[in-house]
Amino acid sequence: MAVKLRYALSLFGVLLALVSIHTYTVRAEEGPGNSDAFVRRLLDAGLKKNYAYTLLTELASRAPHRLSGSADERKAIALTMRMMDSLGFQEVHAESIMVPHWVRGQRETAAILLDGGRGELPVAVCALGGSVATRRNGITAEIVEVHSFEELARMGEAARGKIVFFNRPMDPTKLRTFEAYGGAVDQRSAGAVRAAEAGGIAALVRSVTLAHDRAPHTGAMGYKDGVAKIPAAAISTVDADTLSSLLKRHPRLKLRMHLDCQTLPDAPSANVVGQITGSEKPDEIIVVGGHLDCWDKGHGAHDDGSGCMQAIEALRLLKELGVNPKRTIRAVMFMNEENGVRGGKGYAADQRRSRERHVAAVESDRGGFAPLGFFVQADSSVLAYVQRWQPLFAQLGTGRIQKGSGGVDIAPIVATGVPGFGLDVPDYRYFDYHHSDNDTVDKVHPRELELGAIVEALLCYLIAEEGLPAHPSNATLER
Amino acid sequence: MAVKLRYALSLFGVLLALVSIHTYTVRAEEGPGNSDAFVRRLLDAGLKKNYAYTLLTELASRAPHRLSGSADERKAIALTMRMMDSLGFQEVHAESIMVPHWVRGQRETAAILLDGGRGELPVAVCALGGSVATRRNGITAEIVEVHSFEELARMGEAARGKIVFFNRPMDPTKLRTFEAYGGAVDQRSAGAVRAAEAGGIAALVRSVTLAHDRAPHTGAMGYKDGVAKIPAAAISTVDADTLSSLLKRHPRLKLRMHLDCQTLPDAPSANVVGQITGSEKPDEIIVVGGHLDCWDKGHGAHDDGSGCMQAIEALRLLKELGVNPKRTIRAVMFMNEENGVRGGKGYAADQRRSRERHVAAVESDRGGFAPLGFFVQADSSVLAYVQRWQPLFAQLGTGRIQKGSGGVDIAPIVATGVPGFGLDVPDYRYFDYHHSDNDTVDKVHPRELELGAIVEALLCYLIAEEGLPAHPSNATLER
Repeated sequence: MAVKLRYALSLFGVLLALVSIHTYTVRAEEGPGNSDAFVRRLLDAGLKKNYAYTLLTELASRAPHRLSGSADERKAIALTMRMMDSLGFQEVHAESIMVPHWVRGQRETAAILLDGGRGELPVAVCALGGSVATRRNGITAEIVEVHSFEELARMGEAARGKIVFFNRPMDPTKLRTFEAYGGAVDQRSAGAVRAAEAGGIAALVRSVTLAHDRAPHTGAMGYKDGVAKIPAAAISTVDADTLSSLLKRHPRLKLRMHLDCQTLPDAPSANVVGQITGSEKPDEIIVVGGHLDCWDKGHGAHDDGSGCMQAIEALRLLKELGVNPKRTIRAVMFMNEENGVRGGKGYAADQRRSRERHVAAVESDRGGFAPLGFFVQADSSVLAYVQRWQPLFAQLGTGRIQKGSGGVDIAPIVATGVPGFGLDVPDYRYFDYHHSDNDTVDKVHPRELELGAIVEALLCYLIAEEGLPAHPSNATLER
Repeated sequence: MAVKLRYALSLFGVLLALVSIHTYTVRAEEGPGNSDAFVRRLLDAGLKKNYAYTLLTELASRAPHRLSGSADERKAIALTMRMMDSLGFQEVHAESIMVPHWVRGQRETAAILLDGGRGELPVAVCALGGSVATRRNGITAEIVEVHSFEELARMGEAARGKIVFFNRPMDPTKLRTFEAYGGAVDQRSAGAVRAAEAGGIAALVRSVTLAHDRAPHTGAMGYKDGVAKIPAAAISTVDADTLSSLLKRHPRLKLRMHLDCQTLPDAPSANVVGQITGSEKPDEIIVVGGHLDCWDKGHGAHDDGSGCMQAIEALRLLKELGVNPKRTIRAVMFMNEENGVRGGKGYAADQRRSRERHVAAVESDRGGFAPLGFFVQADSSVLAYVQRWQPLFAQLGTGRIQKGSGGVDIAPIVATGVPGFGLDVPDYRYFDYHHSDNDTVDKVHPRELELGAIVEALLCYLIAEEGLPAHPSNATLER
């Protein structure tokens, strides 16, 4: 017995030694102890292949229009599971959720009627996500142009029976376009409700973009109980300007519009999950992800195919470098960010979470541009802890580490007290493409995209190895 | 007499008071004393119009191929003088210089001969700037592929009578593409000399770019006294890879190439200069500029129409804001950066400089991307002085202020002891366009370009108001 125990202990010791040697080999050379070399290896492995871009091209060509409930959304789920499997990720699986199912339909046209209907000028519009259809034969009505809800309210009855045209541009003088977007998107999200409350029969919203072109930009809108549901569409900025200038000369101008979009019953869908299981603390999880769904315009290349493929690439890079992290690093393709966030909520609420402790959640959903750094959504003690790594990130040109939002998909995890991290990128071009036919793979630069994956790989690795300090809200997920 | 003097003094006092009130009004609200408001006004004025982009579009459409000595170069001189005049700049003039005059000619073709000449595969090439022509009927010869001058030297006689194909790619794993460029451009600049020394009859150089496409990228090359002048051309990266893989299977493959470029006698040209004359120290000059010439491929949009138009826009912004700077802020369109730097040298050597003291020289020549900050080429005391302004530049997202090169055009000024400043931009995309048909206006983003002009306006203004500390080399220009 004594002999046996000693033998067993020796065997365990040998195994432990072997494991130690293995992990030591990796860690001594590349770990936080010698992280400069690790950064160099990440750059070498990443920028030689720019493999995130290869993945993104695959996603965009096989499943371009990944709106929740759509055929392409199902293809994207299967495709990303195959990607993770073929790259050797562990525990690859889908986690079921139900998602809203809105479909655009076949017909989506509008025209300005000129000369009392003798001529017409087609304009580029697209239904906002969640909109009801127009009557089957379309609607034809006069237009009132407004620039704010206050202006609409002051009009009293003037909007009754008319199409309300919300034409306040994004403010170009804001340095950060996300701020300019935030100052204009109310027209898109709440315009239909406000228009209906004023007696309007449809809402026509200037595309929420700084680009001046013919592409209408869609996006989510909502209705309110007790207020009539009226159709809502985006009009391109070029056509919005044309319409506005025509209205100045011909205030009684009419517009005809057909939309045959509709909302179907909720559909089954899923988040896609795969990971590198931690060697020492497998139940402590670092999530890295983006949202797999996108609007049915363009290919969701920047929004947010980029974030999803960067997450997969971050894990692939760590595997290529032979990293064996202490904690689990998990890529999550969240579903339904665009019109419901059911994926983010569903992930946080899933029964599987009760066996896990989430240490951090990382998201990239500001476009696949070369990051400048990242935002930290956590207690100041976590921010300070992470800022110790600033010199490492500065080697990637991404030394800007500051407080800010992690991301919409990880918000439900972050709400339970888990520190959130969101890639910070230059946003000058993002809304040119956002939610429109312009959001295609050619707008993403392979090196810039890859650098985001490299930054995520480094961040996840450092957290996986060193953990984060306990802080008031850094608790196990609660439901 | 006493009465008259008192009256004269009073009148002077009133005038002085009026001037003081005027300048105080501007300075108290917007000057270094309250610079946050000034930054806000610069953003408002700049991002509302993105006028630098309007200027760039004008330049690129009226004078796209501004190679030194060309017709478009003369158009660009006239156009930028008109721009400065119409914007109300002072002292607008051209400063004559002589420039090299190389012309591409009409014919520029190459083909890989297959099956012993029975088939042929055209490849995209372009003569390097400064190259001699091939024989009239072209050259047809076998090819030796090398990746370094060392490899070529080791070959001994193997390159004799052959076309030497330099095929070392830019290193994609370098974070900064300028560094990767620096590691590959020797093949272009010195390849013809090295090939001729080895007995080669032409140099064919892989385009110095990370883009993988069919656009050959030109650029300057040189010859050496006593070494045969052989033709030199760039081949696109796609065709370089094709050629390389064909050579592995068919080492005795031949290439046929025709170039009819030539070097003509030096031609008269000019730098274009205009300014806002300083109100207190008009002879103390802050130069801001870029180079007006470009290669005859693309439109020189990023390289360096952007830098030129940003300089003009920087002054226009300051004028729009009613700024009356203490020192002179001068926009200079330097000529001939690409193949001689005659403009930069000529500006520094011009007799007019003897009446002036240059305080600083600012250049933008790394592409019209949104700046991250700027490089300072000066004594550490100047760097420290300028870094006090970091919080202001951080409001533009451009807080990265570090030692580095100002720029090629201002180098002759900087060499006399004047502090140089060069915009620092993300360079991920720059060499995709550089010196090729890809360098067109659509690759420049209006907001990103404008932000560079705003940063230059702020930097020039701060230096104009506060000066820079005297430092060992901050002396009057010496010739």
